[in-house]
Amino acid sequence: MKYGRFEYQGRIFFGIVKDQEVTELSGSIFDSYQTTSLTHALSSLKTLVPCEPTNFYCAGINYLAHIEWGNQRKGTQTKPPSKADIGYRSQNALSATGQPIIIPADAPGPVQYEGELVAVIGKKAKHLTEANALSCVLGYTLGNDVSDRGWQKSDRTLWRAKNCDTWKPMGPFIVTNLDPMNLTIETYLDGQAVSSYSTSKMIFSLQHYIEKITQYITLMPGDVIWTGVDNATIPDLQHGMVCDIVQKDIGTLSNPIVRLS
Amino acid sequence: MKYGRFEYQGRIFFGIVKDQEVTELSGSIFDSYQTTSLTHALSSLKTLVPCEPTNFYCAGINYLAHIEWGNQRKGTQTKPPSKADIGYRSQNALSATGQPIIIPADAPGPVQYEGELVAVIGKKAKHLTEANALSCVLGYTLGNDVSDRGWQKSDRTLWRAKNCDTWKPMGPFIVTNLDPMNLTIETYLDGQAVSSYSTSKMIFSLQHYIEKITQYITLMPGDVIWTGVDNATIPDLQHGMVCDIVQKDIGTLSNPIVRLS
Repeated sequence: MKYGRFEYQGRIFFGIVKDQEVTELSGSIFDSYQTTSLTHALSSLKTLVPCEPTNFYCAGINYLAHIEWGNQRKGTQTKPPSKADIGYRSQNALSATGQPIIIPADAPGPVQYEGELVAVIGKKAKHLTEANALSCVLGYTLGNDVSDRGWQKSDRTLWRAKNCDTWKPMGPFIVTNLDPMNLTIETYLDGQAVSSYSTSKMIFSLQHYIEKITQYITLMPGDVIWTGVDNATIPDLQHGMVCDIVQKDIGTLSNPIVRLS
Repeated sequence: MKYGRFEYQGRIFFGIVKDQEVTELSGSIFDSYQTTSLTHALSSLKTLVPCEPTNFYCAGINYLAHIEWGNQRKGTQTKPPSKADIGYRSQNALSATGQPIIIPADAPGPVQYEGELVAVIGKKAKHLTEANALSCVLGYTLGNDVSDRGWQKSDRTLWRAKNCDTWKPMGPFIVTNLDPMNLTIETYLDGQAVSSYSTSKMIFSLQHYIEKITQYITLMPGDVIWTGVDNATIPDLQHGMVCDIVQKDIGTLSNPIVRLS
């Protein structure tokens, strides 16, 4: 199933996407819903972020080649994490496919993309194990963890390095019944392929993160877990570019870059 | 004005608190509301967390005496922050006055309180200055930033050190028209005074934080900014204790401690 969240004539609703058609739902995909008889051409709707998480978790560092590339770039010796410590991003920064990634005039840069697989929680969950971890997941979407490497270096926390308004594009849709540990995540800048990696390379699996998180924390419907990025995340984002994060079943999360002057 | 959020016979509503009586409101204090003719004895209602923030900001390190105490305790040389970098906490951990702070059996400890002033945002805001920063604040409440110092030291991030379920008591009420830079925040353990400090000692004022945040981030109604703690935060929290955070106008945020075995 492929779910989306849409706006049409001032109404906001969830829908089921099939090919280029959307069947409108009444209710919430995170609670209960009914299929209605209303259908829309996908192109006639505004696609919104597919969910509005209460809690916004992320894996932070979770792929070896990205760590090695960061160490080469910065001359650092960051080691792979020895355990699955989780990070956070902030909801203010969420943005839908098609919306601009706006870079403030004083951002020191470089500003870079990080195309990631995102797990969307469907059921309240605590004390899961790796074996049953995926039972709380409704489906998967894509995220672009836009980051200013200058602020990431200069600031004590990641607030503006990661959470400027519009810097967390998420979408386009939530797709069920995927294997989160065997997906290819691709990134394109102006249509040119710049990154491709397999989620099979995660240092700690999604299942492991969910087991660890739910040992202490209750996951809630609509919460999201961003699972990290692999590889280099270059070339840098520049004004006027379009950045696409692609997974063949989920679709394309596409955002133009606007740098304020 | 003193606002609260309450549950009564399965209904959840905002109310205005005066002495020991609550006048029920229809609508939201973050949007528009009307006073109803329904009144309740405060003692007959369940007091909930006074708001459910979309974004949960915190000052992190923002008082000198707390830094100096931490350095003595840990043998570290943490310097005061040179700028107002903001941190985050997570909504899963929010808990109302009266609810237990539950310490997992495997928490290494020591587990400590941090009694803080919390600013509650009332209006969407971006690009404020220190001069007009408080125009977006609806009022003030109290928070207890419960922290496991063992996990704070051992983990790369603060997730379980700060965000275990129930570890962010907030309340009891939101009070308008206070001067956030001149309030006395007290903590009591089992009725014994253990900490008292003035918010006038903040390294960076609330106004400064709001100016900095809104340079890059849109504040939304219901968002909260926890402003940090001063002084030592001892003695440690133990099973069976009651921890009260007190400010005379806002009231008492009171939570018993339960350590799982």
